[in-house]
Amino acid sequence: MLTLYYAAHTCSLATHIALEEAGADYSTVRIDFAKTQQQSPDYLKINPKGRVPALVTDRGILTETPAMLAFVAQSFPAAKLAPLDDPFAFAEAQAFNSYLCSSLHIAHAHRMRGHRWVDADDKAAIAAMQKKVPQSVTAGFELVEKDMLKGPWVMGERYTICDAYLFTLAQWLEADGVDPNRIPRVIDHRRRMAERAAVKAAIAQELSA
Amino acid sequence: MLTLYYAAHTCSLATHIALEEAGADYSTVRIDFAKTQQQSPDYLKINPKGRVPALVTDRGILTETPAMLAFVAQSFPAAKLAPLDDPFAFAEAQAFNSYLCSSLHIAHAHRMRGHRWVDADDKAAIAAMQKKVPQSVTAGFELVEKDMLKGPWVMGERYTICDAYLFTLAQWLEADGVDPNRIPRVIDHRRRMAERAAVKAAIAQELSA
Repeated sequence: MLTLYYAAHTCSLATHIALEEAGADYSTVRIDFAKTQQQSPDYLKINPKGRVPALVTDRGILTETPAMLAFVAQSFPAAKLAPLDDPFAFAEAQAFNSYLCSSLHIAHAHRMRGHRWVDADDKAAIAAMQKKVPQSVTAGFELVEKDMLKGPWVMGERYTICDAYLFTLAQWLEADGVDPNRIPRVIDHRRRMAERAAVKAAIAQELSA
Repeated sequence: MLTLYYAAHTCSLATHIALEEAGADYSTVRIDFAKTQQQSPDYLKINPKGRVPALVTDRGILTETPAMLAFVAQSFPAAKLAPLDDPFAFAEAQAFNSYLCSSLHIAHAHRMRGHRWVDADDKAAIAAMQKKVPQSVTAGFELVEKDMLKGPWVMGERYTICDAYLFTLAQWLEADGVDPNRIPRVIDHRRRMAERAAVKAAIAQELSA
């Protein structure tokens, strides 16, 4: 049995979608960022980083979206959510997820989480970071559009964990100041993702909790 | 045949060490950051992100350290550089590498690569980022020290790709303003890593090129 600790409107949606796609038996626990529950003593016992997502398994607790996505794919091989038997293709999928985690999500995070990298009371520096977000997030999505998204799915003909992750980060692009007209293939991917039953189920569950 | 594009004193050292540990047949190409070769038209054909590392394989080109490290481990299973047959243990290793990539390295990058997240000519914002680096990088290494580094190696008794990555980022901690006395287990790990033949070989090759 798996338990996903998540917060609405965060990157935990990617793993939530993957669990749905895999047909996994899992439950969810909502962490309320408005109440700073991610920093509560109880949650810090689950994830000392004070962030979501976290996945409680029979063997222990996992964090970090790229690792959790690969874990879901490997634990439910029948769902064929990653090219598990091909080290090069698997590495390509992992490289995509790693880029989203360490570059695209990080660029986005400078809009609302700037206090991680400058003093929280340095209003000018916080504002300077926010000002750059449309440019840095656009550059990231343009790289995905031009060099990474093979089409129709991220890795080509086969739907993978990468699609769930791209869709998740693509939820925020308008709020980050990205012009959707510059990335039509990413927007089309987002539209097709939104039609999938697993995606609808994960979102409905998060918004109804 | 594999070709590693690397730059001295960067995170490409992690993959370089892994290739040595694996006994891989590989060659290297040095990218000179002082000449901004990572942004040259020729290199952008290899890695459109304009960064190192990149690994040219018979199948195509890989980027992103966590993906490349897992690829080396999977391509040379006899070297036992990751728990390949255990999805949970493999995910733990991947979670560690993902944290290093998306949190610890990112915290470090705010010292010299602040222009990624604010306008390059905003000297006050660049300085505000640099000021926070000792605190944010220390916090990251303390999390590794306290909650992640199982000992004697990152994943416990068995040496893995995670060790090469931690050692690589630990090269920079004094320059980032981290007090080594706060993270004795990380420092001991770094000392033991520096004694390994594969680590010595990778470093010697990078510094002699």
